[in-house]
Amino acid sequence: MQLEEDALVVGVDVGGTKIAAGVVNAQGQVSGHVKLPTDIRSVEHTLQSIASGIRSTIQTTQGSSQRIKAIGLGIPGIVDPLQGVCQLSVNLGWRDVAVKTWLEQELQLPCFIENDVSVAALGESFYGVGKGLENVVYLSLGTGIAARTIIHGQLFRGTHGMAGEIGHVVFDPAGPLCRCGARGCLEALAAGPALARRAEDELQQGKASLLAGFLQESAGTGLRAEHVFAAATRGDALAEQILHEAGQHLAYSIYLLAMNFDPQIVILGGGLAAKGSPLIEAMRAGLTYWMQQAPVFRKMFSQEAVRLASLQSDAGIAGAAALAIAESKTRSLLS
Amino acid sequence: MQLEEDALVVGVDVGGTKIAAGVVNAQGQVSGHVKLPTDIRSVEHTLQSIASGIRSTIQTTQGSSQRIKAIGLGIPGIVDPLQGVCQLSVNLGWRDVAVKTWLEQELQLPCFIENDVSVAALGESFYGVGKGLENVVYLSLGTGIAARTIIHGQLFRGTHGMAGEIGHVVFDPAGPLCRCGARGCLEALAAGPALARRAEDELQQGKASLLAGFLQESAGTGLRAEHVFAAATRGDALAEQILHEAGQHLAYSIYLLAMNFDPQIVILGGGLAAKGSPLIEAMRAGLTYWMQQAPVFRKMFSQEAVRLASLQSDAGIAGAAALAIAESKTRSLLS
Repeated sequence: MQLEEDALVVGVDVGGTKIAAGVVNAQGQVSGHVKLPTDIRSVEHTLQSIASGIRSTIQTTQGSSQRIKAIGLGIPGIVDPLQGVCQLSVNLGWRDVAVKTWLEQELQLPCFIENDVSVAALGESFYGVGKGLENVVYLSLGTGIAARTIIHGQLFRGTHGMAGEIGHVVFDPAGPLCRCGARGCLEALAAGPALARRAEDELQQGKASLLAGFLQESAGTGLRAEHVFAAATRGDALAEQILHEAGQHLAYSIYLLAMNFDPQIVILGGGLAAKGSPLIEAMRAGLTYWMQQAPVFRKMFSQEAVRLASLQSDAGIAGAAALAIAESKTRSLLS
Repeated sequence: MQLEEDALVVGVDVGGTKIAAGVVNAQGQVSGHVKLPTDIRSVEHTLQSIASGIRSTIQTTQGSSQRIKAIGLGIPGIVDPLQGVCQLSVNLGWRDVAVKTWLEQELQLPCFIENDVSVAALGESFYGVGKGLENVVYLSLGTGIAARTIIHGQLFRGTHGMAGEIGHVVFDPAGPLCRCGARGCLEALAAGPALARRAEDELQQGKASLLAGFLQESAGTGLRAEHVFAAATRGDALAEQILHEAGQHLAYSIYLLAMNFDPQIVILGGGLAAKGSPLIEAMRAGLTYWMQQAPVFRKMFSQEAVRLASLQSDAGIAGAAALAIAESKTRSLLS
């Protein structure tokens, strides 16, 4: 995964509220950080704010802008990377936006776009805890749940870019409704909003819990997953029960991913995968259960194979840079 | 996937009772068929009978034996293809047999070995219903259940050669014991022996069924999956119930494979995947259920994407030849 010695790429993390960009060298070091608010008044405004962020970070290289060979962007939504089109982004309010063509005309540099979870998986496999591994699963736990895999050292997209959509596998057909329209998807059972919703439902049923106090303090904005974590840390029985069940579901999803992909490691990323998170602890207890139940799983996998994502604040930028490098090489733009 | 115009390879289907070998040309045509009983008196005897089959098929090429560039073998068991070692084959009575080294010394030709299900998947993707596709899942339904995938046009093995071991995923922790040691694996719920065992258990509980007659006629050898199929075809309620439940489990496994691998097609092979099989019909009903339940699955997959394996009697030989060609190319032995 080498660039020419002095080549640079730009990585851009496009979020619904902010855009972060930086210049990345062949060693994966990020410099020239730029952060600006995402202007979502219109598609044109949003694209202009992205271009503006890119121009600002390029300016920090001073006289070396000719060393910049490509631009990578991670976008929260459904992306067709070959056409360079974002088909749908709820956060950005986009539908069928030809991001690649627009930016390439504006900036006169090759641009590559991908879904933000895919970009995070690439970043971890280029620069993070999966560095140098050929066969890696990245599982993103946050508002949504999705997996992305690196196979034969490459991002594996599947036929429709939907490989790894484990978050929308139904685990419990009688479970809560998911935003995808199904009932009891993993995401509706174990993602952040699911934990909060479950807590509120139980409170409405009259369950006693510290969470009742948190709900009151929230002054109408409702509970969040963090409230469930905080209550569990203080020994609250309802919060512990909610996390126990979500942990079991997450463990089963890792079991499924391991049996399907037989990866070297499974990397946990996303907002809910912080170190010491009670959800991760609950998931580990669930993994122990499945290893006890299933000898084949025990033989091929271990707790040590589940790792937390290692890239911190620059994860989005570094991942987008990894995308630019991987795609440039595939298309022979770089040596 | 071309060989030099006139190059040939030998494909060998090593079974517990018979060995089938043939010469395969660059177009995938099989000639010089040889079939002989597997001599399982000792490892040495078995290897000698394999070598003998290979020599016999090579002799059919008459003066052209120098055109033969490599030998591929499909083996029923756990195989380390890189080392060329069969780690375990219950059918052959093998443990840690260095097949590749032994045959290469004996025959003075490059030899490649793989698990027989992997070989079948390669064969379908080279010459069968998956020809030319980049992203294919092959699901083998027989005495065991296992999936193998072609990703980026290559056989995907995973870290320990265990990618696609969906047969040993626990679907029902309270279910019947599987030979792997777990309870309620897919294989223990839906493979051939599981259908027969379930039928016998129900008969013992006193259920009325045509299967009672079949069991009596079997004169102590017990029921087989074919008996359950035959009874279902004649409208037997117990047989239909057994197939309905197995079909639901198989459909869920295809749903899982599709969500994980987002394949162009899923190919069903193995002894239970014959055309018109009542098990396949039950599985299709299950797929319809999951498509109704899960909009994301419905969007990315269809009944038409489930196809029956198309290679018939030469499947094992052609698949082993495909292995020899794929591996020879990887290792630059062929142009």
